[in-house]
Amino acid sequence: MSQVEVKKTQESLQDRLAQVVELLQRQRVVEDLTHRQEGPHHDRVENLVHRQNLVELQRKLDDLHSADVAYILEALPLEERLTVWQLVKADRDGDILLEVSDSVRETLIADMDDHELLAAAKEMDADELADLAPELPRDVVHELMETLDGQQRERVRSALSYDEEQVGALMDFEMVTIREDVSLEVVLRYLRRLKELPGHTDKLFVVDYDGVLKGVLPIKRLLVNDPEKQVAEVMASDPVSFHPDEDAYDAAQAFERYDLISAPVVDKNGKLIGRLTIDEMVDLIREESESEVLNMAGLREEEDIFASVWKSLRNRWAWLAINLITAFVASRVIGLFEGSIEKLVALAALMPIVAGIGGNSGNQTITMIVRAMALDQVSTGNTSRLMRKELAVSLINGVIWGGVIGVVAYLLYGSWSLGVVMTAAMTLNLLLAALMGVLIPMTLARMGRDPAMGASVMITAVTDSGGFFIFLGLATIFLL
Amino acid sequence: MSQVEVKKTQESLQDRLAQVVELLQRQRVVEDLTHRQEGPHHDRVENLVHRQNLVELQRKLDDLHSADVAYILEALPLEERLTVWQLVKADRDGDILLEVSDSVRETLIADMDDHELLAAAKEMDADELADLAPELPRDVVHELMETLDGQQRERVRSALSYDEEQVGALMDFEMVTIREDVSLEVVLRYLRRLKELPGHTDKLFVVDYDGVLKGVLPIKRLLVNDPEKQVAEVMASDPVSFHPDEDAYDAAQAFERYDLISAPVVDKNGKLIGRLTIDEMVDLIREESESEVLNMAGLREEEDIFASVWKSLRNRWAWLAINLITAFVASRVIGLFEGSIEKLVALAALMPIVAGIGGNSGNQTITMIVRAMALDQVSTGNTSRLMRKELAVSLINGVIWGGVIGVVAYLLYGSWSLGVVMTAAMTLNLLLAALMGVLIPMTLARMGRDPAMGASVMITAVTDSGGFFIFLGLATIFLL
Repeated sequence: MSQVEVKKTQESLQDRLAQVVELLQRQRVVEDLTHRQEGPHHDRVENLVHRQNLVELQRKLDDLHSADVAYILEALPLEERLTVWQLVKADRDGDILLEVSDSVRETLIADMDDHELLAAAKEMDADELADLAPELPRDVVHELMETLDGQQRERVRSALSYDEEQVGALMDFEMVTIREDVSLEVVLRYLRRLKELPGHTDKLFVVDYDGVLKGVLPIKRLLVNDPEKQVAEVMASDPVSFHPDEDAYDAAQAFERYDLISAPVVDKNGKLIGRLTIDEMVDLIREESESEVLNMAGLREEEDIFASVWKSLRNRWAWLAINLITAFVASRVIGLFEGSIEKLVALAALMPIVAGIGGNSGNQTITMIVRAMALDQVSTGNTSRLMRKELAVSLINGVIWGGVIGVVAYLLYGSWSLGVVMTAAMTLNLLLAALMGVLIPMTLARMGRDPAMGASVMITAVTDSGGFFIFLGLATIFLL
Repeated sequence: MSQVEVKKTQESLQDRLAQVVELLQRQRVVEDLTHRQEGPHHDRVENLVHRQNLVELQRKLDDLHSADVAYILEALPLEERLTVWQLVKADRDGDILLEVSDSVRETLIADMDDHELLAAAKEMDADELADLAPELPRDVVHELMETLDGQQRERVRSALSYDEEQVGALMDFEMVTIREDVSLEVVLRYLRRLKELPGHTDKLFVVDYDGVLKGVLPIKRLLVNDPEKQVAEVMASDPVSFHPDEDAYDAAQAFERYDLISAPVVDKNGKLIGRLTIDEMVDLIREESESEVLNMAGLREEEDIFASVWKSLRNRWAWLAINLITAFVASRVIGLFEGSIEKLVALAALMPIVAGIGGNSGNQTITMIVRAMALDQVSTGNTSRLMRKELAVSLINGVIWGGVIGVVAYLLYGSWSLGVVMTAAMTLNLLLAALMGVLIPMTLARMGRDPAMGASVMITAVTDSGGFFIFLGLATIFLL
């Protein structure tokens, strides 16, 4: 990626976005006028204004860092997004494609012809190509691979062979390697000859003649030590390293925990094959937390906020359909007790309270457990203790809040026994919520699924059907 | 913080945790035996085993990085946690306290006397002290401040004067500064004299005689450029910098966007007063996403999974109480239509379907909007467009899934008109869910609150009460 100099201006990104939006709107007005008003004279004037606007917009965009252009593209609806995309200088296409989110990238790639795609991809490193390749048309990828030299092609192939969530898919190949039997002075001279160092170079990789990793030389040590010293004396000989088939999230946690900036990736024989850098890990940490939020709400994937209605529907249908079934089940549970409701219609009004509080409490429990599992804090050793704590919390909540609502039910309907049934049902449903709030994510994890998957939909299903059954059941036994 | 060398072993952290837990359990068994069996001979044998266990545990802990000990402390219940805490060498107390989560830190500090706390704090830098100070007993802080020199005390005071979410509270003071009118050779010699560079030093800060920031010299450039060159020729003269009163989340986004490792913090006059580093930003990014998840579920703050029942209750009560009120409102809405339900008891069974699907769909919308707002992708310019899209998605879902459930209602109860009312009510409630899913987070943001705050509780309140009202209202008008 080209090293664009980041300059801090006093304008915030939000301000810059607002300016772009304003220019686009002015543009739109001009276009509307052009379409409405006929006549050759008018046309020419409008075209002039039109062009002036575009020039101003283009100047604004050229001043922005690729990451900022990417942000603006993400925040614009499709039509405006493509207008801006057309204006961005062709030589930055590649950088920007790598910065935007997957769903937005798709819309941009769809707007480019093979020639433009090839031009954009030619500037990229092997790891960047591998990131992009799955979304490019097959013939573009093919043509691209032809233009690469042997080593590059091999690297792209290797990166593509790993799963998205493995270290191998996230590593880059920009390692600066040195030997252990040279002096720091030699290393310093070698670096000067390189003219440029890759981004995030906080350490050099020390390898032997077979490319096996012997250690790392932190730049900090290179700078503060006597240049006469040998690399072997100064290097760290047992650094944190990763294997390409390791889980990328584990690597991200290691980066976070040990405050790493870069780390070597080695194969089974200890040969250095790539490196991980903190910027990729930060993206991963962000993505991980995001997918947790999305999964809990029953969204399949991140949605470009200006995705078409059709794409949004597909993203949301799976869990809505499941919810429809669970809601139908809850409805049939109530159906079982229609006789009781006919006799005591107050039950119909009170039953959603039992179900609702259970759902809220269950969602709190499941959120906590999913988070603790994401942080690896839940093990089989402490499950029963966790469960006891959640049940205790629910019991107290049930007795206290259930008691309150029991009194309210008595005041409304003048029946003490109805109030007692209400309190008992709420307590039992809260206990059910706690139990399932712990068991659902743990069972999902044991089945190898994401513990957050539709957590909210599932717990609500249990507390709805369960709540109705407990409350109406108790009422039928004790009140009728 | 001391620079513990991180060594990669083949054991995962989970394995190490399991080993510690096993040693602790063995320990527990031994203790139980000691208590149960009397007699002087037995005691001595058990004590020996006891001590052997502790020695083994201590050895395991000494091998671990402070961050790993912190992880283990977080994953242990209180009693075991304190056993481990007692075994950790006193000289690492400070490092570990800085690594653990706030809630766990509280339990550890409560277990230390003033003397231990003072010893732990003495090793810390000013920014670390400021992190810890709010949780220390007042007299310890006082005594601590006495021991600091003037500059340090000033720094601690200044860091404490900022809000937790401001740049000033997160910056450290470990800047390496140089002048612009010296050669790179001089800089290299100066660094060598320092013996050690602060962590995350990827750039040196160039200041004038008044301490005003003139630019930054990336270490990469220092290494690849001719040592004869002047700093002024090589430095980046307009770097990304921050002010201490800026929002820390904005800074974290800038770090993410521009792939920064460190950045200078300057005051109003451009004077360099501190620096931000990527490790603090990573923690912040993690925390931000976490608080989004927690807030949506109506949890006040992160909960130590082994928090006492009482602490858990306090954490969860606020939103449960609000939910109790909203559930009561929903119940009263049903109460309005008790007459209708008495006449047609099928309404009681069907109404939770309308409310439930609305809640699910509303949660999907609100999750998406909250996420887009966190990424600054929602501006006043695109609100109406977003709203239209969400309403369109809801309309289609309502007609299709509402249609399905309408047919089911007809099959169950043999009434076409009931089916039509069901379809209409579902469509209207989904539209309401979309409307409020967009408006609730936007209104919260406009009021200066966190848009995720209790989002799930609030949207469910609207779709419950709204769903019951719409369905029972339509039924009363058209069916009775």
